[in-house]
Amino acid sequence: MDFLQELKSLRDQVFFDERIPLPSDYDKIVIAGMGGSGISGKIFQELYTKEPVIVLDDYSIPEFVNGRTLFISMSYSGNTEEVLSATEAAKKRGCKVVGVTSGGRLADMCDHAIKLPGGLQPRSSLGYMLMPLLNSFMGIGSESLERVAALLEELDDDNEAAAREAERIFEGERIPVTYGFSPYRSVAYRWKTQFNENSKVMAFSNYFPELDHNEIIPLKSTYGKSRFIFYTFGKPGNERISLRMDGTGKVSGVTFNVIQPKGESTVERLFYLIHYGDYLTYHLAKLRKVDPEDVSAIEDLKKILKP
Amino acid sequence: MDFLQELKSLRDQVFFDERIPLPSDYDKIVIAGMGGSGISGKIFQELYTKEPVIVLDDYSIPEFVNGRTLFISMSYSGNTEEVLSATEAAKKRGCKVVGVTSGGRLADMCDHAIKLPGGLQPRSSLGYMLMPLLNSFMGIGSESLERVAALLEELDDDNEAAAREAERIFEGERIPVTYGFSPYRSVAYRWKTQFNENSKVMAFSNYFPELDHNEIIPLKSTYGKSRFIFYTFGKPGNERISLRMDGTGKVSGVTFNVIQPKGESTVERLFYLIHYGDYLTYHLAKLRKVDPEDVSAIEDLKKILKP
Repeated sequence: MDFLQELKSLRDQVFFDERIPLPSDYDKIVIAGMGGSGISGKIFQELYTKEPVIVLDDYSIPEFVNGRTLFISMSYSGNTEEVLSATEAAKKRGCKVVGVTSGGRLADMCDHAIKLPGGLQPRSSLGYMLMPLLNSFMGIGSESLERVAALLEELDDDNEAAAREAERIFEGERIPVTYGFSPYRSVAYRWKTQFNENSKVMAFSNYFPELDHNEIIPLKSTYGKSRFIFYTFGKPGNERISLRMDGTGKVSGVTFNVIQPKGESTVERLFYLIHYGDYLTYHLAKLRKVDPEDVSAIEDLKKILKP
Repeated sequence: MDFLQELKSLRDQVFFDERIPLPSDYDKIVIAGMGGSGISGKIFQELYTKEPVIVLDDYSIPEFVNGRTLFISMSYSGNTEEVLSATEAAKKRGCKVVGVTSGGRLADMCDHAIKLPGGLQPRSSLGYMLMPLLNSFMGIGSESLERVAALLEELDDDNEAAAREAERIFEGERIPVTYGFSPYRSVAYRWKTQFNENSKVMAFSNYFPELDHNEIIPLKSTYGKSRFIFYTFGKPGNERISLRMDGTGKVSGVTFNVIQPKGESTVERLFYLIHYGDYLTYHLAKLRKVDPEDVSAIEDLKKILKP
């Protein structure tokens, strides 16, 4: 599948309807996952706040993980060494472990595995990885998903606005910095990682209101200010965040490029903004004449790390 | 107090011995705090893993916060609007709220307030903010604190190595990127925020092993590679992290400037690395002829936000 086909597959992925079997008794959710697989846990953690959700992106697990922990291991390949290490540790603690994976060693280690269709890059499987979490804990209705799919299709058909943004970055060889806000902090992080993996450029993310307590200062007066290009998203639900965006721009003399999400619900806007970032970073790769699919640096590192 | 005196006060702050009164019955710890006050919660969350610790840096609180939550509100000034908003919400949910503050409105809102000595910048009160957490939950012994203080004093007396690093950043007008790893991820973030506030330069942080799943790619091939300067810390406890550091450098052709922490214990190394970053960012401010104390951009924003 070529990379553009991978991007377009997101639209169908949102209808993936496998569910995580919920134990009758658990007191917290711990999700282990790295990179393009782990992002789904990070997004879910922001959206679902009825129970504590702790996301791990490391080898080890905290002491509080025990038999009452619902442990979810996310790895598209099923062979991510950090996730395998954390999963092994969780099993020793007596956790029931649910794996979300297309295969690999993880599928065999778990008490229950949600089997994902294979053949994609991990970062292109976001719908497959995220939907079991959203459906199992938050019950996203099919009507809402139809609207999500329609918005994604709209972007698949016309992503010229994202292409124009890519040109602005390319022309100035600029460093994209994306500012999110709750519940889209992880979407800003997703943009950062897509810039990294697809476009092969350094990129960063941060979020309101935390950045107003430190990063606002260099925004005003850092050297190399013109090196950076700043993105944020429109329509924050909290009015204070809107005021902060405007005020931060005023105080620092920085123009934020505000990407307006389409969609009425949080989930619709979430997917819209994610997919917008997919296309923005894809177009930047094309302009830079780099292969958006190529992740050879990661593969090279894995060879070095091979035990 | 001048800024250098503020930095030097950290040595005495580690002996601050106020304790958080622990309820007989609670099932999770939630800590609210922003910027230079919130960093202590973020550091604590990494060190203490016996119970779930959730750190909030926003206006609202998650649904799971209830009467069984130990809610700790950290704000050096006591007037941080996000923390006041979260604290108010927590009280409505029936939480017992402990404030850690030098005064302001927070002290009056809390069921119990830990009163900190005033007169410092929030980011210079890290010892005062962090020690009540470490002492109350982890019981750091006085012998260990003596060793921490001795290490800090060593840096107060001789921070020439940090000054030389500052020169390298200054000469190339470079963008510092600091890579941490558990349990020093938040130390890397602390460096980033100190670069922002003290030196007035854009700076970023990230952590192993997550960065090996995305940021490693542009490390190899981003445009403007020479703009960046990369820091990491020595002596990671996990051997796979050491291998990743070396391997990431090899694959990407990036030289990491490895700052070796002094100290035998985690807490000693933690404070050493924090204080090294204090001096590094202080020296960079001096070279750039900016006032490390000045946070007028934050003050200007507060005026705009005034309700």
